[in-house]
Amino acid sequence: MAKDKGPRRPRAETPKGFRDYFGAEVSERKAMLDTIAEVYHRYGFDALETSAVETVEALGKFLPDVDRPNEGVFAWQDEDQDWLALRYDLTAPLARVAAQYRNDLPTPYRRYAMGPVWRNEKPGPGRFRQFYQCDADTVGSASVAADAEICAMLSDVFETLGLGGDYVVRVNNRKVLNGVMEVAGVLDPADPEKFAHERGIVLRAIDKFDKFGEAGVRALIGKGRMDESGDFTKGAGLSDEQAAVIMRFVNANDAINQNLKSQSAVSSKLGSDFIETLSNAYDGGFTELFGRSAASALARNSATLAHLREIVGESGVGAEGVQELETIAELLAAQGYGPDRIVIDPSVVRGLGYYTGPVFEAELTFEILDEKGRKRQFGSVAGGGRYDDLVKRFTGQSVPATGVSIGVDRLLAALRAKGRVQGDGRGPVVVTVMDRDRMADYQAMATELRRAGIRAEVYLGNPKNFGNQLKYADKRNSPAAIIQGGDEAARGVVQVKDLYLGAKIAAEASHEEWKAQPAQTEVARADLVAEVRRILGQG
Amino acid sequence: MAKDKGPRRPRAETPKGFRDYFGAEVSERKAMLDTIAEVYHRYGFDALETSAVETVEALGKFLPDVDRPNEGVFAWQDEDQDWLALRYDLTAPLARVAAQYRNDLPTPYRRYAMGPVWRNEKPGPGRFRQFYQCDADTVGSASVAADAEICAMLSDVFETLGLGGDYVVRVNNRKVLNGVMEVAGVLDPADPEKFAHERGIVLRAIDKFDKFGEAGVRALIGKGRMDESGDFTKGAGLSDEQAAVIMRFVNANDAINQNLKSQSAVSSKLGSDFIETLSNAYDGGFTELFGRSAASALARNSATLAHLREIVGESGVGAEGVQELETIAELLAAQGYGPDRIVIDPSVVRGLGYYTGPVFEAELTFEILDEKGRKRQFGSVAGGGRYDDLVKRFTGQSVPATGVSIGVDRLLAALRAKGRVQGDGRGPVVVTVMDRDRMADYQAMATELRRAGIRAEVYLGNPKNFGNQLKYADKRNSPAAIIQGGDEAARGVVQVKDLYLGAKIAAEASHEEWKAQPAQTEVARADLVAEVRRILGQG
Repeated sequence: MAKDKGPRRPRAETPKGFRDYFGAEVSERKAMLDTIAEVYHRYGFDALETSAVETVEALGKFLPDVDRPNEGVFAWQDEDQDWLALRYDLTAPLARVAAQYRNDLPTPYRRYAMGPVWRNEKPGPGRFRQFYQCDADTVGSASVAADAEICAMLSDVFETLGLGGDYVVRVNNRKVLNGVMEVAGVLDPADPEKFAHERGIVLRAIDKFDKFGEAGVRALIGKGRMDESGDFTKGAGLSDEQAAVIMRFVNANDAINQNLKSQSAVSSKLGSDFIETLSNAYDGGFTELFGRSAASALARNSATLAHLREIVGESGVGAEGVQELETIAELLAAQGYGPDRIVIDPSVVRGLGYYTGPVFEAELTFEILDEKGRKRQFGSVAGGGRYDDLVKRFTGQSVPATGVSIGVDRLLAALRAKGRVQGDGRGPVVVTVMDRDRMADYQAMATELRRAGIRAEVYLGNPKNFGNQLKYADKRNSPAAIIQGGDEAARGVVQVKDLYLGAKIAAEASHEEWKAQPAQTEVARADLVAEVRRILGQG
Repeated sequence: MAKDKGPRRPRAETPKGFRDYFGAEVSERKAMLDTIAEVYHRYGFDALETSAVETVEALGKFLPDVDRPNEGVFAWQDEDQDWLALRYDLTAPLARVAAQYRNDLPTPYRRYAMGPVWRNEKPGPGRFRQFYQCDADTVGSASVAADAEICAMLSDVFETLGLGGDYVVRVNNRKVLNGVMEVAGVLDPADPEKFAHERGIVLRAIDKFDKFGEAGVRALIGKGRMDESGDFTKGAGLSDEQAAVIMRFVNANDAINQNLKSQSAVSSKLGSDFIETLSNAYDGGFTELFGRSAASALARNSATLAHLREIVGESGVGAEGVQELETIAELLAAQGYGPDRIVIDPSVVRGLGYYTGPVFEAELTFEILDEKGRKRQFGSVAGGGRYDDLVKRFTGQSVPATGVSIGVDRLLAALRAKGRVQGDGRGPVVVTVMDRDRMADYQAMATELRRAGIRAEVYLGNPKNFGNQLKYADKRNSPAAIIQGGDEAARGVVQVKDLYLGAKIAAEASHEEWKAQPAQTEVARADLVAEVRRILGQG
């Protein structure tokens, strides 16, 4: 059975759950991240690039209490026994940086970061163990103006990427949710840890309203829920009175969302009119325009806020949360961000436990077909919120912070779906080699084209088979091939073959037409650059 | 002695040997890499981004024959017992990709890659365990035109980065070195593995000529060398006759290099004249110019090649190497790359064992002061060569390949030393907060500035202490601060403070002049953008 006699060859394989990105995949992502970075930068955010590797201790959550602390992270032990790990997000390194350089950084510290993160999770279709994130955070500002700014900036990102009218940023506040919990009797302000388990179940249930509906949420916050397959999920065990409070909140959210959806066509139109008027009045100052927009935006958000104020009732933290949302709504309205772009939405929960105030989620609202061919909304591409306790882990002092993280791969997929990707997928002009002794002449042509700013190269494979050279140009998606044999060289001319036109003719033309080869032109050697420019549409 | 009672706080520290990059450090590197990528792209190279993680098996060199195969790499064992590791360069992943996708990739495959690599080595001053590389390689071309192209492209990179006249790309050929070895009797073409140990010592000795001089090299290739401290390095053990061959080669290299240096002022001048003439004659075709330049370049390289041909004598591989260098020199001369930019230099060795043909090294020739205040040449910033056996590991088939790797951090340091960094270190315009109830007004100012393309933000820290706001603006390197108290708001004006001018006045002006505060201007609210533009020099 011993098949292998010699030493086994290594497998040429990406590790499971990892992938490679080629050509346009890289440059399209880069173009998108460059655009996002430009918006972040214009808002006063500075770049930060931390190393991929952190101590497990600094990352937190994954403390070395087991032999191998790699639950969810890729971790290994250093020579000096320290556990190191690949970062699993960009927020944990920011908290470490904010603590480490607290005496040198400006306060507030606005930073953006973009780069890969790693998760040691079971890979699946479309789920990779290395992926990009793109974050912006403000550390050291307790003002909700910082939260409003993050939302406005996120909106600007989508507008700049060409997704205007196709997204909405939804804003809620953990304090409002806590207020509802307090009223329902599952939060004791004197003992915040109490009922933490029950609250977790309730939050997850609220988050699943879209999926399970009213009855499902009611079951989950009560005794529990049995799904179609018969699997039972244990509930939070709330009494009927407690559950009634939660359900009043959930149903109010639903009513608000239905209302928002029915208005969205109108408000969307209003939004674009507003932007147009704004551009027209550009140099004349914004104040009056802002005033009008503010009134309209507040009118729509005020119903939501009134609802919430009623539900949180006597809860101090709840009232504080509603007040903060009101301030955010006012600030955004004053800057011209109507509810068609940024809207107060109490149904936003956000998974992570560490949020302490406003939370946001950006959704793309256009429809795509899912893997089963059904229409569905594209969905969430970014989320974030306020987390005032992350830096405290290191320093013992609470540092207010707020920020957002964009799911880079999902957003890029959305841009592709909408045909909004930037980046030129066009290959180089290929100078073919008819006579390998005249390599210098061919190189000179490529050099000339490059100096004119045109992407170009000489074919460097084995030139013997000319067909292979044209196949290569085809594979590279080349717009043109340059051909000069001895005869052409003697006459001081070159053949320039328009490969896009050629492909079109090959696909559509008759044999006779094809033979006429109108996609190939002979020009004087001196006119090479001009002819290529013409083909590229730069003529 | 138990100091800590509560749970110990995690240390806020970058792991040993890793570092963080802030603001301009990130954007300056990005600007440099963007420029390089543009040159690579124009030459027809496509981007490739592989994952940071590879199987140890695919990386090679570090096979799991020990319990923990992390010699030099960061490695860990996956759940399914596979060893994974962080890539230590960008060439090993390329070899894996070329093998894995060999049926889908174009041949030749030209790709560039830029990104971090990781080395599990002892960190030291300026030596980090994560650093950037920036590579370009052509896989699947046996033609030395591919090597010449890499050298020309590298030259274009330096020219585009503004380092014209400050660099030289040196080209040699492993086959020439092997030819010398054959003549010296330490290479047997019938048994390439024989004398491998001795050749290693000889190559390292040749590489150290600049450091140890003629006597040092002679000692190393003979019995061995004792350094100043009395430490003895065992030599290659060559006989006097064998050593004479190596020394003839080494001394010839030295003569060539001395000759090059004395001509460098002249050739440098010639080079820039040439470029100027070239630009003037831009649309008139290059051929004649190339012809003249080619003659001059070949004249200077021909002495070197004649020397080499003599030294390699009857060695077949040596003659082949000289012939390849001659072809490279001809191609480069024909494209206008004179020896002031790219030069044949037989003293180039390059460390890595896997090179099989042409090798290149790019050096920056301007002087800097080292840590002891002594003048020295900046030195090597890039290197590469032909490696025809890397893909073979996976497929069993030899695939010719050639490429170059740029040391990103060193090149960036060079650009900084020459004042050639791109990227704007300017902070945002800071809109200060005099009255926290009018946050919406301040936000509107920032929004207005941003929509005019000006980087701007509202101060979001605690606004109580106005001095802190100006200190913050100072720390952010802000060009201007905007101030509007209740009085100014009532009058419809804003104060615009020119912070660069202010800093200059503070540093140079008398107390009287300072009090006059000419760096602060009051303008109508509607003129805010215009006034900031004036201060930024965009007026």
